[in-house]
Amino acid sequence: MIALEITAGIDIAFNEQGLVPAIAQDSVTGEILMVAWMDRDAFARTVETGKACYYSRSRKAAWMKGESSGHLQIVREIFIDCDGDVVLLKIDQIGGIACHTGRRNCFFRKLENGAWVSQFEPLKSESEIYGERK
Amino acid sequence: MIALEITAGIDIAFNEQGLVPAIAQDSVTGEILMVAWMDRDAFARTVETGKACYYSRSRKAAWMKGESSGHLQIVREIFIDCDGDVVLLKIDQIGGIACHTGRRNCFFRKLENGAWVSQFEPLKSESEIYGERK
Repeated sequence: MIALEITAGIDIAFNEQGLVPAIAQDSVTGEILMVAWMDRDAFARTVETGKACYYSRSRKAAWMKGESSGHLQIVREIFIDCDGDVVLLKIDQIGGIACHTGRRNCFFRKLENGAWVSQFEPLKSESEIYGERK
Repeated sequence: MIALEITAGIDIAFNEQGLVPAIAQDSVTGEILMVAWMDRDAFARTVETGKACYYSRSRKAAWMKGESSGHLQIVREIFIDCDGDVVLLKIDQIGGIACHTGRRNCFFRKLENGAWVSQFEPLKSESEIYGERK
């Protein structure tokens, strides 16, 4: 609880919506897996639990990554940038799938001759990951 | 100019300020060097010139990274994430310094027992990089 109190937002420059972008990077390979947002509570929960928690701008709520899919992110190290307005998590991705599309990471489209071209396919379908969404 | 016209913002989900965060990652080592913002024009200039251009929220203007410091970023590949709201640049960092503090990258502070602890020192001082700022 001490760590939670000390780190809950100290030195983080949350934006006017109270959010900060967080990058999840594979702790071993360096692959950038995804970027999501954190509010003060999501950051504190991440530190406290050692599992990545983010804030959903569409659902307006904090969530633990993997709570539906099982694709939890085990946090190994947490960094902040020089301006204090971007968080970097070095993580181990459970299940090897970070993207909600079922892909290894979210950055699967590459700019080629003026068009975004998908570089790799999903490892699982969304229905396999999440079941039939209600 | 064709590439510029085709790619100037297509499929990118700029936020309500017309901006998108862009991550610069070392194309060889995978090290995350910095995160900055791009507007439509900065993205188009990046594609057109092959050098990273960003948008300064404080100066309210697009700028080419390295125009003052000489620390240009040569863009090797450009990716976008699943939601289209984060850009990833794989780059070669001229001079080996991405951070305005003179460090290799901006993520030099690590969370240790509830405090941010600097992990490495600048390679050059800011005055060495920029001269005496007016």
